[in-house]
Amino acid sequence: MNYTYLDHISANPLLAEVKEAMIAAIHKDFCNPSSQHTPGEQAAEALEKARTSVADLINASDPKEVVFTSCGTESVNHAIKGVALANAKKGKHIVTSNIEHNAVIRSLRRLKAMGYTVTSVSVDGFGRVKPEEVADAIKDDTMLVSIMHSNNEVGTLQPVEEIARITKDRGVLFHCDAVDSVGVVPVDVQKIGVDLLSFASNPFYGPTGVAGLYIRRGTHIFPLLDGGIQENNKRAGTANLVGIVGMGVAAEFAKKDMPRRIEHVKRLKEMLLRELPHHIEEYLINGHPQQCLPNLVSISIKYIEGESVVLMLDDEKIAVSTRSACATGSLRSSHVLQSIGRDYADAQGTLIVTFGIENSEEDVRRFLTALKMVVETLRKISPLYKKASTG
Amino acid sequence: MNYTYLDHISANPLLAEVKEAMIAAIHKDFCNPSSQHTPGEQAAEALEKARTSVADLINASDPKEVVFTSCGTESVNHAIKGVALANAKKGKHIVTSNIEHNAVIRSLRRLKAMGYTVTSVSVDGFGRVKPEEVADAIKDDTMLVSIMHSNNEVGTLQPVEEIARITKDRGVLFHCDAVDSVGVVPVDVQKIGVDLLSFASNPFYGPTGVAGLYIRRGTHIFPLLDGGIQENNKRAGTANLVGIVGMGVAAEFAKKDMPRRIEHVKRLKEMLLRELPHHIEEYLINGHPQQCLPNLVSISIKYIEGESVVLMLDDEKIAVSTRSACATGSLRSSHVLQSIGRDYADAQGTLIVTFGIENSEEDVRRFLTALKMVVETLRKISPLYKKASTG
Repeated sequence: MNYTYLDHISANPLLAEVKEAMIAAIHKDFCNPSSQHTPGEQAAEALEKARTSVADLINASDPKEVVFTSCGTESVNHAIKGVALANAKKGKHIVTSNIEHNAVIRSLRRLKAMGYTVTSVSVDGFGRVKPEEVADAIKDDTMLVSIMHSNNEVGTLQPVEEIARITKDRGVLFHCDAVDSVGVVPVDVQKIGVDLLSFASNPFYGPTGVAGLYIRRGTHIFPLLDGGIQENNKRAGTANLVGIVGMGVAAEFAKKDMPRRIEHVKRLKEMLLRELPHHIEEYLINGHPQQCLPNLVSISIKYIEGESVVLMLDDEKIAVSTRSACATGSLRSSHVLQSIGRDYADAQGTLIVTFGIENSEEDVRRFLTALKMVVETLRKISPLYKKASTG
Repeated sequence: MNYTYLDHISANPLLAEVKEAMIAAIHKDFCNPSSQHTPGEQAAEALEKARTSVADLINASDPKEVVFTSCGTESVNHAIKGVALANAKKGKHIVTSNIEHNAVIRSLRRLKAMGYTVTSVSVDGFGRVKPEEVADAIKDDTMLVSIMHSNNEVGTLQPVEEIARITKDRGVLFHCDAVDSVGVVPVDVQKIGVDLLSFASNPFYGPTGVAGLYIRRGTHIFPLLDGGIQENNKRAGTANLVGIVGMGVAAEFAKKDMPRRIEHVKRLKEMLLRELPHHIEEYLINGHPQQCLPNLVSISIKYIEGESVVLMLDDEKIAVSTRSACATGSLRSSHVLQSIGRDYADAQGTLIVTFGIENSEEDVRRFLTALKMVVETLRKISPLYKKASTG
């Protein structure tokens, strides 16, 4: 299909080298890495090789600090619920922010039903958490702070190093949901000083169905999946070895190619932002202008519905999204856009454009031309637009 | 590698057709099935096609009753913890058996730490649960019974239909861990009358990293993974679509080929049992002679260590196991063998041989010849054997 794919926040195509590695793994018919015989050992070797590559990407001091999971959501659930249940004696209060992913929000909601309390700090108009608000929110019974690394709707990067300094100082664990950052921008668990960090393989062109959780050595945490002795007793269940092998290769390339990748998508993002005013009027750009993902542009287009734009652009064979794919089907306005101060109408008119390494300037041009046409068409039938232009 | 692989309870090779389907899925670069554009819809179609095939294998009345998970362990954790937390108001007592997999045992242990109580019923010398004991164990505050379909160490099939009649009669939910049964022997959720059934793709030659949980419509259960709206709001997280596509194809073939497969492995199992006395002496066969998996033989060989047999057979390029791969590394004796009355020494001398569709009579002969040699070698240096033969 001759499709212009600008929805990399929802899913990424696999790197050619990742495909090759996965196909080779499929043909190898890996055995159970926990088995004691030679086929088992060969599987265990492949598993540990991938773990080393992934640990390397986030600069973990020991590959054993990386636990393979099945998705970013599992990593987040494991981190938050695992720490909360294991450290309940220390306290039952958790600090988070208003713009977290549903995996964080709903994990915390589950804990609230079990007697935990949660303080959610606000963000500024750019979607940045204020570290001093985090410091103020920490109480005697706080045992965990969970703040994301980058926001999946507006792309804003959080001051995670400052937050980590505060949590360390106060003796509180810090979990960072870095699902949309790891492999996309540099993430160094030692430099940040984070205790737990959730990430996934697909954002850096590895397969879905495999992800990771960094758990700093010595962190008290329960497994989310109880059972066998896999993953150093931290995550039971037979490993998705084909996926893990793919994630390992994807991690190697992400580390090696990151500067080139960032430069590439940043150039497309800057081109889009530069050309946009020549194609549409009356829109707002969401997120922080500097502290942000290099591949994401969030645009709130006035007087129209983002969902209509997505569907009409789809007719033009262009893929973008209007909100987190994980929240498709929800009728409510985005909590992220509300938190940065967008009103309901502007939030509903939001488009998320995310570039990938395979995109070109021609893709930007195609998108801009199509967007101009779609916005004009939709505004013609928009009562809001009519009201605004005659009012 | 010219390896005789007789450890299908630990891992299965992929069916050629499954490999093909997975490789095609890798090349297709499926998008996020939750996305609203055409690439998202194509992904959603592939996901729902696989769900229908899997639902068909277990005869679910509606594909929506099947939730895709990342492994059998996740399915079991989801079923047990999800039902326990959602139905706590009804009661906090759960009934299980003494021979469950660690995924069940440790999920229940986690719940016990949260104030739940558990009654574990015994099994007979063949490893069969007595339904009347389950009935006796159900109390006013019992909300769940969790009994496995087939045991992964001795192969015994449980009287699940009788248990389901009891739980239905008493208004208690019934979860069945059928990870080693689904796709291997006929499992029909409607015929059994079970409320929740855990299963995995690899036992029927599908990939690891993908599994399923059957949840009867109307069953009150919480997600284990909280977050997005995937899987009908029952399991958040981006789907492992390559794995799910593979599981779908594996399910189709498992359903179609099951009678032929059962006949094939049963013939090898019968040949092994028939020929064994001509190769070694002083052993016990574990499990029920009729109500059992057609592909599993558990042999307790007196006076020697199962782990030594596994390693020496590995030198002969033959793979078997001595216990659940999920329990490798544990120094304790198998709780299953203890429960059926084996003493510590006999339990330690146990081998699990599991046949697959690619095995042949020649594999059985190779195994028997090698086993004879290994047992003779090990008994020569066994103090236990010396004592028994001179005593």
